[in-house]
Parts: sequence; C-alpha cells; structure tokens
Amino acid sequence: MAIGFTGSPLLRLDHERSDAAALARHRGDPRALVLLLDGLDPITDTAGGLSWAPIAECDPAAELALLGMLEQRPAFVALTPDARGKPAFALFRVLAGLPGPDAAIWGAARGLVDWHARHRFCGRCGVMTEVTRAGWCRRCPSCAADHFPRTDPVVIMLAEHAGRVLVGRQPRFPPGRYSALAGFIEVGESVEEAVARELFEEAGVRATAVRYVASQPWPLPGSQLMLACVAAVDGDVLTLDHEELEHAMWVDREGVRMALASAPGAPFLAPPAYAIAHTLLAWWADQA
Amino acid sequence: MAIGFTGSPLLRLDHERSDAAALARHRGDPRALVLLLDGLDPITDTAGGLSWAPIAECDPAAELALLGMLEQRPAFVALTPDARGKPAFALFRVLAGLPGPDAAIWGAARGLVDWHARHRFCGRCGVMTEVTRAGWCRRCPSCAADHFPRTDPVVIMLAEHAGRVLVGRQPRFPPGRYSALAGFIEVGESVEEAVARELFEEAGVRATAVRYVASQPWPLPGSQLMLACVAAVDGDVLTLDHEELEHAMWVDREGVRMALASAPGAPFLAPPAYAIAHTLLAWWADQA
Repeated sequence: MAIGFTGSPLLRLDHERSDAAALARHRGDPRALVLLLDGLDPITDTAGGLSWAPIAECDPAAELALLGMLEQRPAFVALTPDARGKPAFALFRVLAGLPGPDAAIWGAARGLVDWHARHRFCGRCGVMTEVTRAGWCRRCPSCAADHFPRTDPVVIMLAEHAGRVLVGRQPRFPPGRYSALAGFIEVGESVEEAVARELFEEAGVRATAVRYVASQPWPLPGSQLMLACVAAVDGDVLTLDHEELEHAMWVDREGVRMALASAPGAPFLAPPAYAIAHTLLAWWADQA
Repeated sequence: MAIGFTGSPLLRLDHERSDAAALARHRGDPRALVLLLDGLDPITDTAGGLSWAPIAECDPAAELALLGMLEQRPAFVALTPDARGKPAFALFRVLAGLPGPDAAIWGAARGLVDWHARHRFCGRCGVMTEVTRAGWCRRCPSCAADHFPRTDPVVIMLAEHAGRVLVGRQPRFPPGRYSALAGFIEVGESVEEAVARELFEEAGVRATAVRYVASQPWPLPGSQLMLACVAAVDGDVLTLDHEELEHAMWVDREGVRMALASAPGAPFLAPPAYAIAHTLLAWWADQA
C-alpha cells in the first residue's frame, strides 16, 4: 500500500536536538540545506520536487528547526511566526505532483512550522515562549513549562454492510467527490470508540466491529494523524447529520473500483491518491 | 479483549455543546450530577466506584464541562484551573480497583480538566481564553482562535523475533516491572513509522512489519491515545538507549504467560491490567 505523506527519507535526530555541540556542527555544515516554503506551501523545482537552499544563503538571524539528516546533509526549515498556507483543495495540483518522499518531508516541515506559528505563547501563563530542542519544543521562560508539537488523532472510516461501503460528501468537496467519513478522536476515547461514535452521529449507523487498516500523517490545516478503519455496521438505513454531510451513499466493490480508476460512469469521484481515504477504498476493493 | 479506560457509559452530546438552550436545560435538570475529584484524582465511594454529587450541591459559580448523559442524567465535571493530580504510580491501587466504566469516565474527565488547567491562554496571542462549547473548547476573545482539547498519539509496541518479544524497564518503574516500549508519535509520522523509529532509537532493532493490535485512551500525565502494535524485527541484538531504558530483554510466550499470571518464577512483573501493555502482552501470548 502506498500511503501519502509517508516514506520520508529524513533521519530524525531526536537525540541530538538537545545537544548544543551537535546542533552547532549541523548548522555550520556547509552542505546543510534549508527547505524553501511559500508561507507553509511547497515551492517546487523544475523537476516537480521540493526546493532547497544552501544554509549559507539563509538569513543568519532566522530561527531554524532541524528536520533531520537527508542523505548525510543536515536539513532545516525556518520557523516563520506569521506563516500561513493555502487550504488543501488549493494545493491539489502541487500535492498530486510531489514525489512521495518530498510530500512526506513537506508534511513534517509544514506541521512543525505551523505549530510554532500557532503556539508562540504559553498556555499555562500567557508568556511568550522560546524555541528549544532544535525546533521540537517551546519553553516558557516564566513557568518553565515545555510545550511539544501537537498532532491530533483523527479516525477515517468506511462503514461496511452487505458488501457495500458508505461514502459521504461534505458541502466543501469538489463536485462529485465522495470520501470516507472522518472525525477527531476526543479526550477519553479509543480509536474504535471514536469510529463508532462518529458513524452513529454522522450517519446513524451502529458499528459492531472495527478493524484498523492503516495510518497517515496529514498536514492540513494542522498536523493530524489519520487512523483508517473499516467498521461492520448492523444496517444500511442512514440518518445523516446534514451539518457534516451533504449526502452519503452505499457503494459496492465494482463502484469503488470504477471510482478509483476514474472510469466513465463511476458512481463518484474518488479522493486523491495522497489521501488515506483513497488507500482505504483501494484496500477494501481488493478484499474478497 | 478488556482494555482499560474504554467502555465509557457516557453518551457524548457533541451536537448539544453549542446549543445554549440544551445546555441550560441540562444544567437545570435536578437529576444532573457532578463528578467529584480530588484535584484531578478520583474520589471513590464505599463501593469503590466514582463519587458524584447532585448538581444542586455544586457551587453555582463553578465552570462546568458537560461530560455527557449517564443513564439519562446529565453528567458534569468542574473545571478548576489549579487542578493537579498524582502521578500514575501513586494511583495504582485506586485505578486497579475502579470498575471499568468508572475508569473510562474518570479518564475522560481528568483529561478534559487537566487540558483546561494547562491551556488557559491563547497560544497565538497570549490572551486569557474563555470556555465555550460546554467545556470542549476555549475561545480567544482577542484573535477569535478556537482551541480544542489536545490528545497526544503514542505508540506502544512489542518487538517480536523468533517467538520472543522485547520488554524493557524505565528507571522509574517499580522493582521487577517490565513493559512494552513506547514513545510519542511525532509530527509527520505514521503509526508504523513511529513504531520503527522508536524501536531503533531505544533498542537498536529494525522493524520489518508492524501490526496494529488495539488502542486505549490513557489519561496520565495528560490525555494520550495509546496505539498498541507488534513489530517483527530482523534480529535480536540490542543496543539500548540508557536514557530511556534501564534494561530490556527477550521473553518467550511461557514467560509472558507466567508474568501475566503473576506466577512464582515469572521473568518479570507485568504492567497492571488497566494498561494496554498488559492487553498487548495477553494478546500476543494467545497467538499461535
């Protein structure tokens, strides 16, 4: 299974993040690279991959986060407190064109830069915090609280009944697009409980068994961890929450295969290949 | 599989959290209950379960979060900005004695109260935020940012090789205790990638395949989502990170079964039944 935003070639140097000597060495390495971003968005080179600059071309005053080692070269990204990015739909073409490893690097970098931009002040006491651990932590100079980058776990799931799965569309989707249902996991829930709650809230169907399939880091609009599941449900009568879903429908394997192949007459437009909903639909279409 | 902190009987009322009339109705319901806590810790009743008070006995000025409906009664918890709790090891006896549904209710309540206590100020602009959505959000009156309760995804895993699994102990563990290895999932990682990275960093073993087994919400020291996996690794030679692990060892199924049964001569003291490491070891011991 190829899964979007996975397969990063970066070797994360967790153990060197608090090592001042190692950091100085990486920062002074003439081979070191800095990822170029347009706000939070990727800048592609002529070959369609990410763009990098030698660290010597980078503003010496820039606050840099150490992404890790990329083919023996230290790789950084600048932490710009006012960085903003385009929404996912506006990045469709560039994301669809990015090579997999580059998409994974960009996803991690975007998540980190965006987190810093939105977490400059201490949640406990309101004081401006300082970047520590090579960009992987912010420390409060007043109360000494350490704040670490945040990733929100999200369930994304196909309800399954009688050989068909449930796909739905949100009002903001492009015309014809349907996808798996999804929702944030709340405090105090397991993956399986969140899947069951979301399916009941959004579609009125009751999960009887939940099977985990795969996971994906998803960088938009913030860092999320997508946990993709298939849930057997006890009936196919839908009660939709129209604040979440404009429409939903059951689709059989042939319909899913047609959608994934963008075949003429397909019952819906499938999510893009870099979305784990696509992976999940492809996985399910290959079963039995 | 019985999994600690799951199986909450609370019906979360997500769709009523922003509904002022529904909230006023729940708050005015004479059957409504408020969970009693000692800081963040549970207060058990004479039967060993959680303690509740009628809402009429609650300070009318208290800021309450709506946990959900509990057997047709609205259930709240007070948001106390200075709430602190004991560490996990100090709560061992009370957690081991709490009935499963009560542990799940307490876990969600603790996670929510603790999050509010540690996220009173806006990360974007440093201004004091206000509780909204019945306690499930904080809004910044200055920049209008909405902040939602945070849950950190964590991988916890058994490396497996030649019919044995790897268990390790941290210096802070009680004498004899070993458990599965664990670590936070970082921005830009999948579950499977985080498992492989942590196993290599902490024990020097290389994962060749990762299998998800189960998940659990874990409330200490903050709200975490534990994602339990078994990872096949390509060798059993260990290179331990002694900052993380004091010791680690390979154990076969008989050893794991003895540990889970607290049998005399067991090779280690198993984690408590409410920890998903226990569930994971039991699941593995039952395979093949």
